[in-house]
Amino acid sequence: MTTLFIRGGTVVNADRAFKADVITQDGKITAVGENLSAPVGATIVDAGGQYVMPGGIDPHTHMQLPFMGTTTMDDFFTGTAAGLAGGNTTIIDFVIPNPQQPIMEAYQTWRGWAEKAASDYSFHVAITWWDETVKRDMGTLVQTEGVNSFKHFMAYKNAIMCDDETLVNSFKRCLELGAMPTVHAENGELVYLLQKTVAEMGIKGPEGHPLSRPPMVEGEAANRAIAIADVLNVPIYVVHVSCIEAAEAIARARARGQRVYGEVLAGHLVVDDSVYRHPDFATAAAHVMSPPFRPKGNQEFLWRGLQSGSLHTTATDHCTFCAAQKAAGKDDFSKIPNGTGGVEERLAVVWDDGVNTGRITPSEFVAITSANTAKLFNIYPQKGSVSVGADADLVVWDPAGTKTLSAKTQFSKGDFNIFEGRTVKGIPSHTVSQGELVFVQGDLRAVNGKGRYIKRPAFNDN
Amino acid sequence: MTTLFIRGGTVVNADRAFKADVITQDGKITAVGENLSAPVGATIVDAGGQYVMPGGIDPHTHMQLPFMGTTTMDDFFTGTAAGLAGGNTTIIDFVIPNPQQPIMEAYQTWRGWAEKAASDYSFHVAITWWDETVKRDMGTLVQTEGVNSFKHFMAYKNAIMCDDETLVNSFKRCLELGAMPTVHAENGELVYLLQKTVAEMGIKGPEGHPLSRPPMVEGEAANRAIAIADVLNVPIYVVHVSCIEAAEAIARARARGQRVYGEVLAGHLVVDDSVYRHPDFATAAAHVMSPPFRPKGNQEFLWRGLQSGSLHTTATDHCTFCAAQKAAGKDDFSKIPNGTGGVEERLAVVWDDGVNTGRITPSEFVAITSANTAKLFNIYPQKGSVSVGADADLVVWDPAGTKTLSAKTQFSKGDFNIFEGRTVKGIPSHTVSQGELVFVQGDLRAVNGKGRYIKRPAFNDN
Amino acid sequence: MTTLFIRGGTVVNADRAFKADVITQDGKITAVGENLSAPVGATIVDAGGQYVMPGGIDPHTHMQLPFMGTTTMDDFFTGTAAGLAGGNTTIIDFVIPNPQQPIMEAYQTWRGWAEKAASDYSFHVAITWWDETVKRDMGTLVQTEGVNSFKHFMAYKNAIMCDDETLVNSFKRCLELGAMPTVHAENGELVYLLQKTVAEMGIKGPEGHPLSRPPMVEGEAANRAIAIADVLNVPIYVVHVSCIEAAEAIARARARGQRVYGEVLAGHLVVDDSVYRHPDFATAAAHVMSPPFRPKGNQEFLWRGLQSGSLHTTATDHCTFCAAQKAAGKDDFSKIPNGTGGVEERLAVVWDDGVNTGRITPSEFVAITSANTAKLFNIYPQKGSVSVGADADLVVWDPAGTKTLSAKTQFSKGDFNIFEGRTVKGIPSHTVSQGELVFVQGDLRAVNGKGRYIKRPAFNDN
Amino acid sequence: MTTLFIRGGTVVNADRAFKADVITQDGKITAVGENLSAPVGATIVDAGGQYVMPGGIDPHTHMQLPFMGTTTMDDFFTGTAAGLAGGNTTIIDFVIPNPQQPIMEAYQTWRGWAEKAASDYSFHVAITWWDETVKRDMGTLVQTEGVNSFKHFMAYKNAIMCDDETLVNSFKRCLELGAMPTVHAENGELVYLLQKTVAEMGIKGPEGHPLSRPPMVEGEAANRAIAIADVLNVPIYVVHVSCIEAAEAIARARARGQRVYGEVLAGHLVVDDSVYRHPDFATAAAHVMSPPFRPKGNQEFLWRGLQSGSLHTTATDHCTFCAAQKAAGKDDFSKIPNGTGGVEERLAVVWDDGVNTGRITPSEFVAITSANTAKLFNIYPQKGSVSVGADADLVVWDPAGTKTLSAKTQFSKGDFNIFEGRTVKGIPSHTVSQGELVFVQGDLRAVNGKGRYIKRPAFNDN
Ligand SMILES: [Zn+2]
Ligand SMILES: [Zn+2]
Ligand SMILES: [Zn+2]
Ligand SMILES: [Zn+2]
Ligand SMILES: [Zn+2]
Ligand SMILES: [Zn+2]
Ligand SMILES: [Zn+2]
Ligand SMILES: [Zn+2]
Repeated sequence: MTTLFIRGGTVVNADRAFKADVITQDGKITAVGENLSAPVGATIVDAGGQYVMPGGIDPHTHMQLPFMGTTTMDDFFTGTAAGLAGGNTTIIDFVIPNPQQPIMEAYQTWRGWAEKAASDYSFHVAITWWDETVKRDMGTLVQTEGVNSFKHFMAYKNAIMCDDETLVNSFKRCLELGAMPTVHAENGELVYLLQKTVAEMGIKGPEGHPLSRPPMVEGEAANRAIAIADVLNVPIYVVHVSCIEAAEAIARARARGQRVYGEVLAGHLVVDDSVYRHPDFATAAAHVMSPPFRPKGNQEFLWRGLQSGSLHTTATDHCTFCAAQKAAGKDDFSKIPNGTGGVEERLAVVWDDGVNTGRITPSEFVAITSANTAKLFNIYPQKGSVSVGADADLVVWDPAGTKTLSAKTQFSKGDFNIFEGRTVKGIPSHTVSQGELVFVQGDLRAVNGKGRYIKRPAFNDN
Repeated sequence: MTTLFIRGGTVVNADRAFKADVITQDGKITAVGENLSAPVGATIVDAGGQYVMPGGIDPHTHMQLPFMGTTTMDDFFTGTAAGLAGGNTTIIDFVIPNPQQPIMEAYQTWRGWAEKAASDYSFHVAITWWDETVKRDMGTLVQTEGVNSFKHFMAYKNAIMCDDETLVNSFKRCLELGAMPTVHAENGELVYLLQKTVAEMGIKGPEGHPLSRPPMVEGEAANRAIAIADVLNVPIYVVHVSCIEAAEAIARARARGQRVYGEVLAGHLVVDDSVYRHPDFATAAAHVMSPPFRPKGNQEFLWRGLQSGSLHTTATDHCTFCAAQKAAGKDDFSKIPNGTGGVEERLAVVWDDGVNTGRITPSEFVAITSANTAKLFNIYPQKGSVSVGADADLVVWDPAGTKTLSAKTQFSKGDFNIFEGRTVKGIPSHTVSQGELVFVQGDLRAVNGKGRYIKRPAFNDN
Repeated sequence: MTTLFIRGGTVVNADRAFKADVITQDGKITAVGENLSAPVGATIVDAGGQYVMPGGIDPHTHMQLPFMGTTTMDDFFTGTAAGLAGGNTTIIDFVIPNPQQPIMEAYQTWRGWAEKAASDYSFHVAITWWDETVKRDMGTLVQTEGVNSFKHFMAYKNAIMCDDETLVNSFKRCLELGAMPTVHAENGELVYLLQKTVAEMGIKGPEGHPLSRPPMVEGEAANRAIAIADVLNVPIYVVHVSCIEAAEAIARARARGQRVYGEVLAGHLVVDDSVYRHPDFATAAAHVMSPPFRPKGNQEFLWRGLQSGSLHTTATDHCTFCAAQKAAGKDDFSKIPNGTGGVEERLAVVWDDGVNTGRITPSEFVAITSANTAKLFNIYPQKGSVSVGADADLVVWDPAGTKTLSAKTQFSKGDFNIFEGRTVKGIPSHTVSQGELVFVQGDLRAVNGKGRYIKRPAFNDN
Repeated sequence: MTTLFIRGGTVVNADRAFKADVITQDGKITAVGENLSAPVGATIVDAGGQYVMPGGIDPHTHMQLPFMGTTTMDDFFTGTAAGLAGGNTTIIDFVIPNPQQPIMEAYQTWRGWAEKAASDYSFHVAITWWDETVKRDMGTLVQTEGVNSFKHFMAYKNAIMCDDETLVNSFKRCLELGAMPTVHAENGELVYLLQKTVAEMGIKGPEGHPLSRPPMVEGEAANRAIAIADVLNVPIYVVHVSCIEAAEAIARARARGQRVYGEVLAGHLVVDDSVYRHPDFATAAAHVMSPPFRPKGNQEFLWRGLQSGSLHTTATDHCTFCAAQKAAGKDDFSKIPNGTGGVEERLAVVWDDGVNTGRITPSEFVAITSANTAKLFNIYPQKGSVSVGADADLVVWDPAGTKTLSAKTQFSKGDFNIFEGRTVKGIPSHTVSQGELVFVQGDLRAVNGKGRYIKRPAFNDN
């Protein structure tokens, strides 16, 4: 295996930044310090003028998601490869059972799909229905499979929506198991009614998508899930917080001492809802995801949440449908498959709009792109830390490098880029996964199947 | 009919207080002014040193509520008579259809029961299920029966609970009809789970009641109903706001300009949750109502809401079950019939704890005991105002009079008084209903069947 | 004296609107009711399809304000005449003593200037310094001169700024006297420092004005004054609340039950800070007032405050300096005399942006343009109410009438109009002052000296 | 020098806890890891079942503070020795120049006094007046003396109070220098007025102390200082946040993304204002400090701030006056010297009320007692971290050890203990300072003069 000597950079951890060389051997970090000597045979990486950071962890992706007999464009190989190109060394994807499907069966299916992954990966498991077998299988997943988080969709009525009855039962079970409940927070009944109402008003195009899912629909659901977690005394993690209303629900709960955590998508930080009014259907439809991009003003508020510590992680909800797939909703916005990409661009976008603007420090960047996720999902400091003993998952970050983001040049197999044309300053020069250089100055060396499934222990395992 | 000359008092309306005599004839107020002459044959009421105010309106009572083959102790006669003794000249009660029962049928049943009322009355109608006939009948009630408000119970799972699907449909229908949706805000799924959880912990007595309905259970539901109303653009009225969490949900919504209104029960203003820890089952059980009485600190917060205008009305949820009825839950707190009295004491309790403490002015007292309810439910200034042309429904209020509240001396047929032993300063000396003296210095002259059904027009009738 | 019969309109009071005729005699309203008979000799005003409302009260004007040896363009005659043309029948202006000047002397000076007023008027008195004579004279003003409010400028260092020592002493004195303290809330030390800092950055033009007075400068001062009032247990009225930060300070205080009131200028409701970036100095300078016009987003927030009842009155701070006077600050924005007009346009602007947009009802319009001011400054219902016995100060409002606001057509002697070019729907057709028609369909009949000084009793006079 | 081998404990850092041995040599930590070998000649410390944490840092003490010709009971030796006994290895004290005294002179005086310290120490410098020499000397302190924080007293009128003019100038200077402004937040004008008012009411005893400094007095000042910092774009640290009002001001600012930090005293977390009503003057007076202990409810709110991350550090404001000194205010509470102890008890009290109750984790304990202070005042990871290269300042913490806190058994020279009689579970078994065992199982081995002055670099030194 490769030995790396990463020389002369500034190591950035969530707690501080400092000048140091880094040595990795056998897939682990073996030394961090000033003026180290290069081990014999080591590959030298010159990190002068650059930052050496823990590889990004994307806690929210959907690779190879089945949909209407087809799947998203990126499978676990191409999706994780694109991630590596963007400086990410781990993803946490989702197992999503159909209602009534045994959740162990769905879990095994996703495990199979993921074997081709190029980077390390892990799984949240969605709870889409409830009975005693589901309850039992949650225990198996936590105790033997290394799953410590369960997802609940509060929207998508008549499909995977989890009603309050299931929600309260599952949250209670999470508490027993030491697992973290997470929620996609939108009030599914309201979305359902509004989709019909908007259609009745004659609005059939993508501009109807945000009208059917206004911010309060998300704020309500976030508040509800948080209140339930409060009553049941279980922590909670809210995925893709997109608006002021939801961010305030989290902040209010945290102000009363509750353990609530919020995730923000890179897209929600910089894209606003004007995209849905684009005259070209394909362009507008390509932005259809839920929660939708939000009116100006929300973006700044999300940044403030990340600055103040009431929001904690950044993700992408990477879920790439191509134009042909999106066309399924040509005459009815509610039929447009929901999803956008971003796994490859997240770090650069967050750096550019966060660090370059003075909103956050490099250490805070590491916190919200890697370390916090590792801590919240209990794989820290194996992941999320540049320290001796940690996995050799690193990104060498060139703060002076620039790049114009585009679908034309992306590694992802998607055919669209929601950051199209945005020039960012601050890009990865090298990505190190399991101690190997998998991305070097634009050269992607991802290996199919090299990624490992990462077990995440329950929180009460002390 | 009687002509009254109420001489030398201070008339108090919601906008101001001023010295004036008041004359009533044929059930209406015919003159308000200084130094009026007594009409020939008028009955003279000396209001010197006293306040002349619009009679109280209790917007939340349950007279003659059927329960397990029996009914509450107070029927429409004894309940409204007790109300008159306390200075109230109107109540708004509830028609509560069983799920699947035609709502017009339930409405007619309640109208029949109410014919014996001694004071004027009106009805909110509960929406406990949903189909096209319910939707249609809501229109009939608004357009021909003078019902302009519909109630939704967010708790009482497996009984009258209204799930989110019904809620959003009914709210949307209210908007079409110009009717006000109202909610009993508690998350029924959480209550259901907590009742089981508390029982599993071995807690079977009344002390389990508040444990199964913590404040956040109410706060969540209030926030949810308000958010739904916001999204659908309909006003909303939250009944019996009992805790900080719910009051804050209302205040937040109002701060964004939403039309949200909150009702507070007299009991919630002055009684705290220590009552559930009373060693005597009967006493503790007698206080069982929902939402429960709350920990200290909540009472002050409710007062602040009334002071600042984020809460609007006071009520009682008068619903009197006797000790024998309460005993149904002797071994299981969740079986104790929910309800307490108060229609007779509300004005005195609110005056004593509000005006005497300096929290509110006499005009604000009139606002929160009478005028605001009349405005919100569209019977102002027929009710809620001492002005020419208004109904001659008045209370002459003696600010120096004192009384010790007690089940022993109450007119209500209930056998318990949640204000037992409290000595209040400020009591009605006379109550005038439809121009008749129905309560004079302790002498109750209520007449069975004298009360009229009051139609309330829809809000879009201009 | 004239007798008026205002026929067929909809009377709008703060508590409700209703069809009624109105009769005025000898300067008072003598009848309000349906189907009245016209008194013999009465002048008939046809109010069909129109609203009959209490005349507007502008609680914040500066007529004839002395400045650098000259005065504002509008004196008490032209200013109140312009007010009448806009539907206002009362103004409350300010006596502003120089530091060290006896406040009774200043008061007499202003009383003299005001004798030419065409409408009724009253005075707040500013406290610009402190010693025992000031304390004594405050008593005289309250007890014998009918002044029940005192103004405190928290900005204008080295001029009329009132430091915290004076503030706390004066607030305490207000409490003793039953008078309302009011504040111009801006942190004068910060403004002073920022004016220098902005100038050092090379910014000398009007665009420097808002940079030297950012919203937090106002928010801080508002919060401070309110906190002091809270500690000393005195109510407080914050003039010209212009931004989210100050409005939130008020809302927070009200939520804890404090008696805090907020005033909003018509200009702050509809004009934003882009005006300071106008390339023409005269135009940009014409908008210089303090607090400055604010970034977009603040306007909506102020409306929400008025909707929810955390803000209470609307005013203008009418203070007209012409282009030649504004030119004093051609090379230094801090030397531009602060002030804009508006007394003539307020009602129309508030109606158009408030009632026509659905934000407020006609009754709420009356509350925030007239009745609330009358109540807060203790001249209700003499002013602010269409009811028998009230002053015959009325405006007949044509909701279908339109007008394009412009300096070219205004009655005010100012040479600028901050609402220039705005077309409003809803204008006064008739203004009635003291029972006389003083403005009829565009014909202004203001009479020099016809206005009366209105005494306002202290709040503890019961 | 001593070599230590701390074996078998759980190392707790702010980011995580993990089993590890720790080796220290020459005053530095040289190894942290599992199954290390003991260096030859090392002193073995058995940490089995115990936590090994960075030594506490108390960011707020007043040792040897001169007062009326005498000084506090604890000088720099006895005070730091008491600190070591409690697990603290660093204090940050205050240089407090008299108004008009050259600040360099005061700085040198304090440096001299501190030479006898037994543990490491550093200094904040107070800005009590303003002119160009003060401005210049702030530069010298930052650039050559390692001072990176300046303190501002917003109370103590006619003594060391810093008015808004000085505040804004000093804050601006801090920004230029990369120094952190800190404030004692109380409105000095209000305190001054209230002290007189309370005295005029006949209240002369210690019960008058909290009446003269109600929470809003602190909340106002905190809000003001934070607003000024916001406008000037400088971070700010608020010392001894004691009440809801101040904590909310911080939380509000953080929610808009501002860099605001809050410190809480151990005393304010567990002691309430009932102490001032103690019948014994000496006892009541012994609790006199500012801000005063607060009504119940505030304590929980402070904990919530620490939990949610809106408050950051814990301190003591250790300032010990004995009964004879306190007696100076026997007839006038405003003359009682302000101050209480606590440097010895802070860690145990915070652990007991924080970790044992489940409010915070051991890692969060380290954050709020050590690491956060080190980061905020720029001495991390030299201090505040158990990691290779850090100073060997450690505490071995026995979570099973118990102790009853008492003046009788304390090492501090004060004669009172505000935690008297409180039995805590969780106490230091060993304290290590500069690699030496200075406290072992109750045996204090503090050495006069062994402590070093710690320079803290400016924040813009990259
Ligand atoms: Zn989702
Ligand atoms: Zn997703
Ligand atoms: Zn109810
Ligand atoms: Zn009820
Ligand atoms: Zn002003
Ligand atoms: Zn002004
Ligand atoms: Zn202090
Ligand atoms: Zn101190």
